[in-house]
Amino acid sequence: MVVVMQHGAEEAHIQNVIKRLNEFGFDVHRSSGVNQTVLGAIGVKPDFDVRHIKVLDGVSDVYRVTEPYKFASRSWKTEDTIIDVNGTSIGGTEIQVMAGPCSVESEEQMEACASMCAAQGATFLRGGAFKPRSSPYSFQGLGEDGLKIMQEAARRHGVNTITEVMEVSQIELIYPHTDVFQVGARNMQNFSLLKELGKTNKAVFLKRGLSATIEEWLMSAEYVMASGNPNVILCERGIRTFENYTRNTLDLSAVPVVQNKSHLPVFVDPSHGTGIRNKVTPMARAAVAAGADGLMIEVHPNPDQAMSDGPQSLYFEQFSELMRQIRLIATAIDRSVREPQEVSV
Amino acid sequence: MVVVMQHGAEEAHIQNVIKRLNEFGFDVHRSSGVNQTVLGAIGVKPDFDVRHIKVLDGVSDVYRVTEPYKFASRSWKTEDTIIDVNGTSIGGTEIQVMAGPCSVESEEQMEACASMCAAQGATFLRGGAFKPRSSPYSFQGLGEDGLKIMQEAARRHGVNTITEVMEVSQIELIYPHTDVFQVGARNMQNFSLLKELGKTNKAVFLKRGLSATIEEWLMSAEYVMASGNPNVILCERGIRTFENYTRNTLDLSAVPVVQNKSHLPVFVDPSHGTGIRNKVTPMARAAVAAGADGLMIEVHPNPDQAMSDGPQSLYFEQFSELMRQIRLIATAIDRSVREPQEVSV
Amino acid sequence: MVVVMQHGAEEAHIQNVIKRLNEFGFDVHRSSGVNQTVLGAIGVKPDFDVRHIKVLDGVSDVYRVTEPYKFASRSWKTEDTIIDVNGTSIGGTEIQVMAGPCSVESEEQMEACASMCAAQGATFLRGGAFKPRSSPYSFQGLGEDGLKIMQEAARRHGVNTITEVMEVSQIELIYPHTDVFQVGARNMQNFSLLKELGKTNKAVFLKRGLSATIEEWLMSAEYVMASGNPNVILCERGIRTFENYTRNTLDLSAVPVVQNKSHLPVFVDPSHGTGIRNKVTPMARAAVAAGADGLMIEVHPNPDQAMSDGPQSLYFEQFSELMRQIRLIATAIDRSVREPQEVSV
Amino acid sequence: MVVVMQHGAEEAHIQNVIKRLNEFGFDVHRSSGVNQTVLGAIGVKPDFDVRHIKVLDGVSDVYRVTEPYKFASRSWKTEDTIIDVNGTSIGGTEIQVMAGPCSVESEEQMEACASMCAAQGATFLRGGAFKPRSSPYSFQGLGEDGLKIMQEAARRHGVNTITEVMEVSQIELIYPHTDVFQVGARNMQNFSLLKELGKTNKAVFLKRGLSATIEEWLMSAEYVMASGNPNVILCERGIRTFENYTRNTLDLSAVPVVQNKSHLPVFVDPSHGTGIRNKVTPMARAAVAAGADGLMIEVHPNPDQAMSDGPQSLYFEQFSELMRQIRLIATAIDRSVREPQEVSV
Repeated sequence: MVVVMQHGAEEAHIQNVIKRLNEFGFDVHRSSGVNQTVLGAIGVKPDFDVRHIKVLDGVSDVYRVTEPYKFASRSWKTEDTIIDVNGTSIGGTEIQVMAGPCSVESEEQMEACASMCAAQGATFLRGGAFKPRSSPYSFQGLGEDGLKIMQEAARRHGVNTITEVMEVSQIELIYPHTDVFQVGARNMQNFSLLKELGKTNKAVFLKRGLSATIEEWLMSAEYVMASGNPNVILCERGIRTFENYTRNTLDLSAVPVVQNKSHLPVFVDPSHGTGIRNKVTPMARAAVAAGADGLMIEVHPNPDQAMSDGPQSLYFEQFSELMRQIRLIATAIDRSVREPQEVSV
Repeated sequence: MVVVMQHGAEEAHIQNVIKRLNEFGFDVHRSSGVNQTVLGAIGVKPDFDVRHIKVLDGVSDVYRVTEPYKFASRSWKTEDTIIDVNGTSIGGTEIQVMAGPCSVESEEQMEACASMCAAQGATFLRGGAFKPRSSPYSFQGLGEDGLKIMQEAARRHGVNTITEVMEVSQIELIYPHTDVFQVGARNMQNFSLLKELGKTNKAVFLKRGLSATIEEWLMSAEYVMASGNPNVILCERGIRTFENYTRNTLDLSAVPVVQNKSHLPVFVDPSHGTGIRNKVTPMARAAVAAGADGLMIEVHPNPDQAMSDGPQSLYFEQFSELMRQIRLIATAIDRSVREPQEVSV
Repeated sequence: MVVVMQHGAEEAHIQNVIKRLNEFGFDVHRSSGVNQTVLGAIGVKPDFDVRHIKVLDGVSDVYRVTEPYKFASRSWKTEDTIIDVNGTSIGGTEIQVMAGPCSVESEEQMEACASMCAAQGATFLRGGAFKPRSSPYSFQGLGEDGLKIMQEAARRHGVNTITEVMEVSQIELIYPHTDVFQVGARNMQNFSLLKELGKTNKAVFLKRGLSATIEEWLMSAEYVMASGNPNVILCERGIRTFENYTRNTLDLSAVPVVQNKSHLPVFVDPSHGTGIRNKVTPMARAAVAAGADGLMIEVHPNPDQAMSDGPQSLYFEQFSELMRQIRLIATAIDRSVREPQEVSV
Repeated sequence: MVVVMQHGAEEAHIQNVIKRLNEFGFDVHRSSGVNQTVLGAIGVKPDFDVRHIKVLDGVSDVYRVTEPYKFASRSWKTEDTIIDVNGTSIGGTEIQVMAGPCSVESEEQMEACASMCAAQGATFLRGGAFKPRSSPYSFQGLGEDGLKIMQEAARRHGVNTITEVMEVSQIELIYPHTDVFQVGARNMQNFSLLKELGKTNKAVFLKRGLSATIEEWLMSAEYVMASGNPNVILCERGIRTFENYTRNTLDLSAVPVVQNKSHLPVFVDPSHGTGIRNKVTPMARAAVAAGADGLMIEVHPNPDQAMSDGPQSLYFEQFSELMRQIRLIATAIDRSVREPQEVSV
């Protein structure tokens, strides 16, 4: 931590800052220039609130010069984290695609999705079973039955499953039915949930909050990792800005930034990130070109009749074309996307 | 809902939009100008996803012309809601001040706060008992013991209590110890929590999320109200913007906007809204001048030793001076702040 | 324009709104439901300030249902605009790359840049001659000499030129030395400048302002087009958001949005959009994958010694590798990037 | 400047950073901990681009620990700047109010405004003569005739004038007709204009850009001051955020922040800051309560017929009531607003 004193700060103020820093357990190195004194404080704890020093008399600014997270940081672990889920590698050279509907609605719907995903080279089937949404007047999901429907469809076609967990009390219920726990954007700072997921042995897919900085997002990953679970997958899904022709602003520059700051895999969800079907494909392509380790895409056999998020779900033929395009783009950066599979009829 | 077709949209596309609108249960009024057709759709359900129409061929734009909330709207209830909490009126001409520390730490601390608050004219004692914070390495609160400590101190001095509830499972535990449930900014869209609080008979103090629009905030109030609890108090506490000399940008214009759109009382929390002590007093004054129905202020008998948020907590003498100033400001707009009370020693 | 009256608005208020609309020259269609009256106003002028109606008694909301721009709109001109600059087509299937240093510094520097650009398949040489920057203490550019140096270097290697014009008084000076006028982000709403450029016969490359909505950006294009110049190229270069690990947030979703709303070509500038060299290449690739019609990239023969923006300028070998990658990506979407040219020694 | 090296950075990288810093003219102090090396670089020039160091191998982060401005900084001048304009003090205990229409339209209009302002205790008459607006289809102002009309009206009633200058070429024309030059939000970073205004001897009223950080705003003040003009008045007028129930978000916390960082007076413009009449009064009161040194308010004798910005202009009786309210609020913070004047008929 670096404490910059005001120009011409009084010696008494400087001494008081040093005294307070010592009380908080820091070693202090003082360097005094002609006009300005700067104090280096060594030994900052990750949770130290720098405002304790900022409010002291004579202090101009305080800079935390270390990251507030550790396990999630590339300075702690330099090589990329590769997560194995039933033999599928997340974070390696192969780009993984997770696809499926917003909500699990029926066996027929999930069978159609699972079959199509597997055929196209997607490796994860997604679907939501608990859908408390922003309006109290909307469809709220099939619950445990939905989880079973999804899991059976996925097994029939040899793909993995991922579904969202919304509160601590759901972890036990969802655990046997999913391969990866998804934490939604609104729960990115639900610290109780993160801590409990950190005690499980399944990977956690952590979406970025709508107004979360990248630093806060990595801090949330830290919560999971500090509880014992190193398998965190980050997922950018759009941030809130002043622009209102789009629902959110998909922050694709988060991909190279995260890859620089952290060793964790980073995915992109262009479906929620754009909110409208005809922007999903261009932004999915862009995500792969930017270097994302994977995509999460909403598809539906009949988007016009979907119980939720139909307008941002791709038709099957659009998804198939998207997979073809990203397979070509991946080659430009020496990566790959799984080839289409022969349909197992 | 108003659907604007593209210039020169084909008749087949127009007919298809009308057909879809009818399927969704709307009555449709068509008005065709020389270049452009506009469709009025009557009977929109509050949860209708306008993107269903936006993605259809030939559609240029879709405007939901009714608010997505009902109970929270001033068009549904024109007179101001005044909430009675043990004889204290929230939302009337008297401006209420809620004060206390970020975290309940000890009996001595809460006794000091309760005594000072009561003496200065504050009518609510605040304090947090569950503090899962953004760093996994920080103080996490006293739990139920903290609630008891706060409640006893408040009773001794004749003030009400308010504390934060963070998940559904805490409601039962907290219920007997608080007069008002506080929902924090991060939980503004925790819909399960809002629904359950809607089934209780205690007022809900709903903080605005860091990146929530005013419309989303009122939708969250709607969740509580639709579940049966009409007593919602809104609280502005800063939004996230590009400015970084302040922690958040306190959006005081939300006060007149909310008062125009809704009948619910609206408070301001300048402590979290600014994050640093020397900005709390000016912004608290400004909130009262803007017309806020009340303030939530962090105070601490010894901010330098506070377990959390000390740098944004006022010293007692600062709080006393603030109360004096807002009492004067209130008179300029024909409102009042409770007079200082004789200390009940 | 659609005017939504409040629930239960008085008839006198409704009549007054109709009267005012008529005074402003609108035809009014009234549709009254059980609870609510909606007024359709036909004949809105592009500059009508809807707030005139919004402030009237009894009005709930006002929606301008037509775009405030005309010439820039795809509803006015459905086919893509393709701009010819000395035989190079902007906005067609070939993706154009503009490259060069931030500032023109010397003949040697520009010769190196022009030669390398031409060899790699870039078709425009960029460089700034007037550099009044955010600090009054910085290098301010070579002026007209710089323009001549750039133009000669470009001619020697058969590429076009583009340079920034900062005020009306510079147009005449710059005109003979450039093929395209660049308008910087800070001048996006310098309406005098836009109007004057609209009277010239050279294409205008219009960067999006740091906090400009896409609608405002298209309005600025409208200014140029309404003055008689239909050749506007839009360029996304990052918007300001709360995220501070990056200088700006490059809004790549602007690419498909603009292509939907307008017929004008849209470029991306990942150098200013990210502000740091190691993010330029991934975001340049992503821009092409998202469908951009071209890129503007800062390169420098010796970025470490550049007078300005060195840290975001690519080394020549990085630029060469980038060109190779985007050539592959372009094929995935049936587009192309010019092949590397034989060096004309 | 503080340079933080990565954990376990190689010695060769550290040496290279030190070498580069020396080449840029810095003295370097090295402190090496067990895991991490931090370099203090003394002697930073205000225009140094820290990205030069950020891109070097082994560097984790770079912090500029001094402000990039000097003359505008409170550390350079500790006492408040008080600007005298024809005997009226700006920045002292008296709060100054500037009022008038958006555009100068006629003699009658300006006479009515000047007379009313003077009577109510406003000390400056405002009005725009050049109005190139965001739509090319709008009223563009009366030009020099407008300036004369405004000045004569102001003189008759003993108030000062302020008007906007939009480009360098207008300075000479406007100079004889105004007491203070206003620089609009869109020109906050028009550095040529700022430099030229810095060579005049009239005060400059510098509005904050819609997306400008407070630091950038102070940098723009620095431009004026570095050219020789110490008389800069800052004016907050709303920033762009995601909230869209208001036109802009008026950032009142900028008032105490600026007063802490700088010695310059700071005003607030709630008319542009909110964009709608019924929010102007509450936010004007809030600005005074927050500690602003003055207000700029749009008023019009007949807002419904105003050529521009009518919907955000106060009626005269609203302005009169506002002045009464802020006079009371000012007393709460030991400040004053000029008393209503006897009308000089």
